[in-house]
Amino acid sequence: MKQVVTFGEIMMRLSPPLQNRLSQASSLDITYGGGDANVAAGLAYLGVPAAHVGCFPDNAVGQAAAQHFRGHGVDMQHCVFRGQRLGLYFLEVGASLRASRIVYDRYDSAFANLQPEWFNWDEVFRNAQWLHWTGITPAISATAAQATREAIAAARRLGLTVSADVNYRRNLWQYGQRAQEVMPELVAGCDLVVCTEGDAEDLFGIKAAPDTDNSFVSMSEQLIARFPQIRQVIATRRDTRSASHERIQGLAFSGGNYYETEFFDINPVVDRIGGGDSFISGFIYGQLTYPTVQQALTFAVATSALKHTIPGDINLVTAAEVEHIVAGNTTGRLLR
Amino acid sequence: MKQVVTFGEIMMRLSPPLQNRLSQASSLDITYGGGDANVAAGLAYLGVPAAHVGCFPDNAVGQAAAQHFRGHGVDMQHCVFRGQRLGLYFLEVGASLRASRIVYDRYDSAFANLQPEWFNWDEVFRNAQWLHWTGITPAISATAAQATREAIAAARRLGLTVSADVNYRRNLWQYGQRAQEVMPELVAGCDLVVCTEGDAEDLFGIKAAPDTDNSFVSMSEQLIARFPQIRQVIATRRDTRSASHERIQGLAFSGGNYYETEFFDINPVVDRIGGGDSFISGFIYGQLTYPTVQQALTFAVATSALKHTIPGDINLVTAAEVEHIVAGNTTGRLLR
Amino acid sequence: MKQVVTFGEIMMRLSPPLQNRLSQASSLDITYGGGDANVAAGLAYLGVPAAHVGCFPDNAVGQAAAQHFRGHGVDMQHCVFRGQRLGLYFLEVGASLRASRIVYDRYDSAFANLQPEWFNWDEVFRNAQWLHWTGITPAISATAAQATREAIAAARRLGLTVSADVNYRRNLWQYGQRAQEVMPELVAGCDLVVCTEGDAEDLFGIKAAPDTDNSFVSMSEQLIARFPQIRQVIATRRDTRSASHERIQGLAFSGGNYYETEFFDINPVVDRIGGGDSFISGFIYGQLTYPTVQQALTFAVATSALKHTIPGDINLVTAAEVEHIVAGNTTGRLLR
Amino acid sequence: MKQVVTFGEIMMRLSPPLQNRLSQASSLDITYGGGDANVAAGLAYLGVPAAHVGCFPDNAVGQAAAQHFRGHGVDMQHCVFRGQRLGLYFLEVGASLRASRIVYDRYDSAFANLQPEWFNWDEVFRNAQWLHWTGITPAISATAAQATREAIAAARRLGLTVSADVNYRRNLWQYGQRAQEVMPELVAGCDLVVCTEGDAEDLFGIKAAPDTDNSFVSMSEQLIARFPQIRQVIATRRDTRSASHERIQGLAFSGGNYYETEFFDINPVVDRIGGGDSFISGFIYGQLTYPTVQQALTFAVATSALKHTIPGDINLVTAAEVEHIVAGNTTGRLLR
Amino acid sequence: MKQVVTFGEIMMRLSPPLQNRLSQASSLDITYGGGDANVAAGLAYLGVPAAHVGCFPDNAVGQAAAQHFRGHGVDMQHCVFRGQRLGLYFLEVGASLRASRIVYDRYDSAFANLQPEWFNWDEVFRNAQWLHWTGITPAISATAAQATREAIAAARRLGLTVSADVNYRRNLWQYGQRAQEVMPELVAGCDLVVCTEGDAEDLFGIKAAPDTDNSFVSMSEQLIARFPQIRQVIATRRDTRSASHERIQGLAFSGGNYYETEFFDINPVVDRIGGGDSFISGFIYGQLTYPTVQQALTFAVATSALKHTIPGDINLVTAAEVEHIVAGNTTGRLLR
Amino acid sequence: MKQVVTFGEIMMRLSPPLQNRLSQASSLDITYGGGDANVAAGLAYLGVPAAHVGCFPDNAVGQAAAQHFRGHGVDMQHCVFRGQRLGLYFLEVGASLRASRIVYDRYDSAFANLQPEWFNWDEVFRNAQWLHWTGITPAISATAAQATREAIAAARRLGLTVSADVNYRRNLWQYGQRAQEVMPELVAGCDLVVCTEGDAEDLFGIKAAPDTDNSFVSMSEQLIARFPQIRQVIATRRDTRSASHERIQGLAFSGGNYYETEFFDINPVVDRIGGGDSFISGFIYGQLTYPTVQQALTFAVATSALKHTIPGDINLVTAAEVEHIVAGNTTGRLLR
Repeated sequence: MKQVVTFGEIMMRLSPPLQNRLSQASSLDITYGGGDANVAAGLAYLGVPAAHVGCFPDNAVGQAAAQHFRGHGVDMQHCVFRGQRLGLYFLEVGASLRASRIVYDRYDSAFANLQPEWFNWDEVFRNAQWLHWTGITPAISATAAQATREAIAAARRLGLTVSADVNYRRNLWQYGQRAQEVMPELVAGCDLVVCTEGDAEDLFGIKAAPDTDNSFVSMSEQLIARFPQIRQVIATRRDTRSASHERIQGLAFSGGNYYETEFFDINPVVDRIGGGDSFISGFIYGQLTYPTVQQALTFAVATSALKHTIPGDINLVTAAEVEHIVAGNTTGRLLR
Repeated sequence: MKQVVTFGEIMMRLSPPLQNRLSQASSLDITYGGGDANVAAGLAYLGVPAAHVGCFPDNAVGQAAAQHFRGHGVDMQHCVFRGQRLGLYFLEVGASLRASRIVYDRYDSAFANLQPEWFNWDEVFRNAQWLHWTGITPAISATAAQATREAIAAARRLGLTVSADVNYRRNLWQYGQRAQEVMPELVAGCDLVVCTEGDAEDLFGIKAAPDTDNSFVSMSEQLIARFPQIRQVIATRRDTRSASHERIQGLAFSGGNYYETEFFDINPVVDRIGGGDSFISGFIYGQLTYPTVQQALTFAVATSALKHTIPGDINLVTAAEVEHIVAGNTTGRLLR
Repeated sequence: MKQVVTFGEIMMRLSPPLQNRLSQASSLDITYGGGDANVAAGLAYLGVPAAHVGCFPDNAVGQAAAQHFRGHGVDMQHCVFRGQRLGLYFLEVGASLRASRIVYDRYDSAFANLQPEWFNWDEVFRNAQWLHWTGITPAISATAAQATREAIAAARRLGLTVSADVNYRRNLWQYGQRAQEVMPELVAGCDLVVCTEGDAEDLFGIKAAPDTDNSFVSMSEQLIARFPQIRQVIATRRDTRSASHERIQGLAFSGGNYYETEFFDINPVVDRIGGGDSFISGFIYGQLTYPTVQQALTFAVATSALKHTIPGDINLVTAAEVEHIVAGNTTGRLLR
Repeated sequence: MKQVVTFGEIMMRLSPPLQNRLSQASSLDITYGGGDANVAAGLAYLGVPAAHVGCFPDNAVGQAAAQHFRGHGVDMQHCVFRGQRLGLYFLEVGASLRASRIVYDRYDSAFANLQPEWFNWDEVFRNAQWLHWTGITPAISATAAQATREAIAAARRLGLTVSADVNYRRNLWQYGQRAQEVMPELVAGCDLVVCTEGDAEDLFGIKAAPDTDNSFVSMSEQLIARFPQIRQVIATRRDTRSASHERIQGLAFSGGNYYETEFFDINPVVDRIGGGDSFISGFIYGQLTYPTVQQALTFAVATSALKHTIPGDINLVTAAEVEHIVAGNTTGRLLR
Repeated sequence: MKQVVTFGEIMMRLSPPLQNRLSQASSLDITYGGGDANVAAGLAYLGVPAAHVGCFPDNAVGQAAAQHFRGHGVDMQHCVFRGQRLGLYFLEVGASLRASRIVYDRYDSAFANLQPEWFNWDEVFRNAQWLHWTGITPAISATAAQATREAIAAARRLGLTVSADVNYRRNLWQYGQRAQEVMPELVAGCDLVVCTEGDAEDLFGIKAAPDTDNSFVSMSEQLIARFPQIRQVIATRRDTRSASHERIQGLAFSGGNYYETEFFDINPVVDRIGGGDSFISGFIYGQLTYPTVQQALTFAVATSALKHTIPGDINLVTAAEVEHIVAGNTTGRLLR
Repeated sequence: MKQVVTFGEIMMRLSPPLQNRLSQASSLDITYGGGDANVAAGLAYLGVPAAHVGCFPDNAVGQAAAQHFRGHGVDMQHCVFRGQRLGLYFLEVGASLRASRIVYDRYDSAFANLQPEWFNWDEVFRNAQWLHWTGITPAISATAAQATREAIAAARRLGLTVSADVNYRRNLWQYGQRAQEVMPELVAGCDLVVCTEGDAEDLFGIKAAPDTDNSFVSMSEQLIARFPQIRQVIATRRDTRSASHERIQGLAFSGGNYYETEFFDINPVVDRIGGGDSFISGFIYGQLTYPTVQQALTFAVATSALKHTIPGDINLVTAAEVEHIVAGNTTGRLLR
């Protein structure tokens, strides 16, 4: 099978053990993640060849980040090692009514300072069938936005499927261009878009129908009308009861039809970072594997639900394990 | 008080910390356990003299396993140290809808290669009142089955009570004899049997009444009719909500009467391995202590419920702690 | 802002990791805490200047205890370093239906052996507005009771507000005087008292109305009638579902009016030690900040609820974090 | 083989990880040890049946201490569980020129408060050949001294060999009797004594020849002249280069002859606590095994040298491992 | 006693456990340190009142850094909490012939972006007798250099002693001004300077006599001739055998006389970060305590030697512990 | 550059933390290694493309082992996932005079049960220049020996360089064929052989000159005479002072000339497992990089020396780091 390629920043994530706060910690658990690279690693675990393209400082920290994803089976050969620092973030894990909290320290990273010409997209995509990116990448810097633009253009030219998680993070856009200026052109080049009603309004001024039952369809129809390349819109709906208890549902609009899954109950939540990314890796796997959108969507939410039970950013589950859940085995009976 | 003696294999259990998967782990938490030895250790904690008979490789790994149970108060003086390797298993602990998963690595262990003549059962039982064994032991190898046979025969001859947890594990029976050939003779020598409707059908072809309310009684009556030595049949009924939430109930058929307990709610489950073994250690304690089956059964389920809150295979609780639960103190108020 | 001063014993707390029992542990997590010092540290985190007065052995253990609170921002300059040992306690953390359990080892501590003349209360209170103490302190020894008496007298003389958590611990009173003899005089000097119906009956013979809805008011009215200096009585009501699931509500009687909050749901409980102390630090903060009792009370319960999600004795939360909860954000959505 | 029995206090030892100081630690590594019990455990590892007699608080802490030694193979059946607290000590591990440092917290322990009549020495010694005690035990309390007296008397009456490590700790003797009054009577009942020139002078006023080469012999001769029951005197000589580098030599005076071993070089020292105790367990093993004093002495020092490389108080080595060192294999080549 | 005040950046230090490399680590040990703040904390441990002035991001990371030093007894009340990020560095600890390696990630930190007017030096120095700074601070940014300039001026005006560790780090000076332009003016305001021959040449063009025995004196004389305010020059001489074995000697030039200490042998080195800072804290303590330069110098080197045996940046030793070493107790005999 | 390919078994290595013994451990540090795969991973770190061919059980344990090496940059695409269990070994790390000790548990592993036809060597070598194998592989099973035979034949046919570490482990050869029958044919196909005088005598009956100075040359000459394909013989000479102190030297015989390096001193040794493998990865790197044998040999020993300072089996060092040592920087000065 040909590769799914992702492009974006990988950060070091540092968190105090268990539910401790930073001021209590004498060590920090570390892992590495990024909204796009998580999708690649998740796909690799599911058995889909995956490659990630990124930019790392050429030091022990950058090497360790790349090695982490290489270990998880992601082809990292097109990554660039230039620059000074790896972006990082501190995560305090909450519980019950206390939310988990992130302190970012990612400005001026090697990725933010990348030059678009460092990436030869024709070479990167030589063995690829799919490009996935997130709205975080063009938010980081003008050069990152430009590289995204070029990657999408090359992917379209070479006939790849292109997907995006629009993922609007207001605070990130600080280099002088607004998301509302940059994102439309990029999204216009996508076949599949992950987007909530809120992000559609913030980014594209799309006002969904106020009725919750229809709002996702309404938003999707408008989005597709605006960007005709888009063939599918998907999203998760979260019913967050507490930092320790989450219920998630998958939504899709495809071929003019609306699909949804039942809610999956996750109690306790072990680690919710990367929950959305694993939904996407599950959906891409599903698209490449199953004949129907409904099957792909159910597989995607089950993948995401499993991710919530695993420490770290990545859904470290095999396709067989997801199928076990899809088949209804959600009571967690011991497997010998 | 005279000893309760158990016979069977002890394995090393290796698990990644917390809910991590094996591929994430740079260390593994270890402990040691076995379906029969867990009963002995549980009894020792409850204050009943207990001995275990097993076979270990004569190396640092085997010594560590034996030492673990010796520390918990089990008399290990009749254990044999011969052979090459200790059986072991890897446990990935699940959460919520992700089940815990075991990868066994136990074939060709020192225990599997034991010779029946290494054990002098008259000597072993000199100070004993009770023999307990599980269906795992005769499943391991022909010599292990033969040693079980000899142990039961000696126990009967010397007037000990004999109990068995039939515990049918299809995948284990690989040495050429079928469980259905081996188990009937062994179970025929027992006074007390732990058995579910499913195991009774698989092992003895007993078909219980289809009605859930009657199925346990129906199965028990047939089992006793078939093996007249049996005086009591017990089991736990699990209402498993997720890997983190379990409800358990105790069932008993004794003297022609049916007994059951209310359900005990365990949320979250800290460690469910050994949950069944602790039920048995609680019931044996109860039989030796209380005048009524109902009391013994309630004590047994409370013991098992407490076990689910303790890391490792063994119910590390005193009889007073179980009685505290039996008395209705299940809301977990801090004890100063 | 002037300081809030607390007076009492700080102990080392030693607990096996996670839910392990002492007999399984090869290391113990340590922290330091005390019912009064926890209030000071909680206030310091909330932004209120706080000082603690205590007595520690003049060795590495005592220094470490003082340093712990100094790190959390508590002014420890009036602490005395004399004596032989630091009181300590072992905590086994329970889960679900297994209660957490404390084994105390605090007798004959440096604090118990303090001499009242070691403390110059005029000096201590030079920059203070408030004294808070708990019923544990006068329970420890005759000299500790005497020092409490002198501290209250000085505080009254200097115009400080005085609050007390009566916190009756029957087992502690072992030096020859009964709580019922000692406490009334001390409580008589307080403006604010934390007291449950049970403690009021045990300590002061006050019988509250049997009706749960009225019992707190009834008790408060009698308490104020008996000790006219008291202007406010507060308490938390706990609806403890299990060691892992708690619901708490705040109650106050002030100016002849009764106040209560809704219940806050805490599931799972990460660490319930210090839950009451954090309620008090929240209420003191509230009194110093908000115009109404209702606001202070709600802030207090929210502080306590957050404390239950944090390892250790102290509510390591900022006022902004508590206000976030008070504003209704209790579903734990990730904060970026 | 019959048992070697030891009598004395077991404490919990708490130390910050690695070379950290107490003020840096958020967890403490724990183990359990005592100068006499360490000898018993060391003997059990070497294959000699060993029992320990002690007194523990009847709580989870005391049970954990007893379990630790039970796991190491020591027969703990004659231990008594009465009293309030387990003695404990904090150990900061040094390195290089920084010495390790101990803060004791052992006063008023369950052992200190023992009553001599709790021990039935005829029962304890039923299957024993040897009693070993240390000078720490009679230093703890008058009742502990009295129990030691009774144990020695019973041992003599029943024909056991009696050995003592005189181990004079000035600071411990605080209950009103002086070591110089108590120890002579006790030592008078011993066959084998571990004693340095310094202790002999402090305890018995024996002045050894000033010449280092002769001082041990001179002291031993005087000791034997004074206490005719003594047949052998042994000691280690330490050439301490730093907290991380030690050289030790064994000395013995037996049958009028002087024996010594070469120096064993230990660099780095992993854990020097229990180094002397392991020397004694090695010598007792040697006496029971080898025909010559020289062999026993060499075995003893090699045991002690190995102990210095193992964390904790006890020489967790088999006799074969010690013999490997005795045979000259001290360069540490990997054993497969 | 009045305070010693330090000014400079505090960073988070992150290192893989033991000798692991970054690519092997799943957690990082963290501590906090800075060349100047380490001096303050070291002094606080030695019993000298110390304050530090710095600038931290106003988030959980910055608060944790400040709390670390507050816990160690440093007065942090004049610190400013403004800005985005805390500088940090990754440390891989070497051993034997493999050097420890630092990867810095400190650019654009809150401290680098400080504004000089945020610090009211008259207020800071109200209770101070001494200002200490290092050459790292003016290297960080123009505003940091300006604040240093203002601090020195204020200190001089208020009659404080001023000391500096010139500590030339070529790579740090990146904001447009050269060390050679900035440092002379700052050093001109100092009474005591820590400086090696190499730094003197690089920074001030001072060429010391080529003969090792005379080079320090030669350099010192020229330095004092150039900057007449300087009354003392001190330095350590390192005889580095490997990453695990260090020998250090103290040198001083004061009042026209040369002083040196013997070499202190440190084997193994536990942590050499902060070794120079602890030398300075020891020397300042010595100056404030002892009548002679020789005594202060010996105390300083002994402090530094002890620091090499302690994890983290700070010499967590009491004055009594240093005096114990100074008195010749360097063989590390166990202290009970 | 084309790949270096290795073939052999990868095992899980389990060791108690620090210097603890198995009986003390409640967790085991794990890593993965194998004599051949370690060479591949070491080369990947040095920047040489490397691939490993092995056979793993198709379960979470086998996947984790493969992932470990994939993370370190080794191409694992030709590995086979079939079979039941991963071989493993327990390692107790010694110190000073106590040797590290290995308990193997590797029989009947997936690798031992491989079928030669599972490997398509023409495909494997498509992009390769070098094959490296060790004498461990043909010792494991007849099929492993046959696969080695086929790999060598294919490599020769395709023009690859072939190297072998003869590494005779007597205990491993248990499947019915003797090393002396199997090895000669395999070694005959090699260009470069790592062999000591002892192994040459045991395997090939070659008696080296008794004089130590000449023995390596004498052995090498006879080896080359016997197997004319061999062009180079290399070895390390170890001067093992203790488990913590090692000195190593490199020896080579090439083109009729003898080469040796100076001794590298390693004190302390952090981890000596894989020390020989890292020597080989260094020598292969050197052969591919430097013009002279002497340079390659020095680089090889320096690589091995660095490996001894790093936990785990693999030399996690860059070529630049080795060159830093080769350039004489062996005193471990901190690198900023």
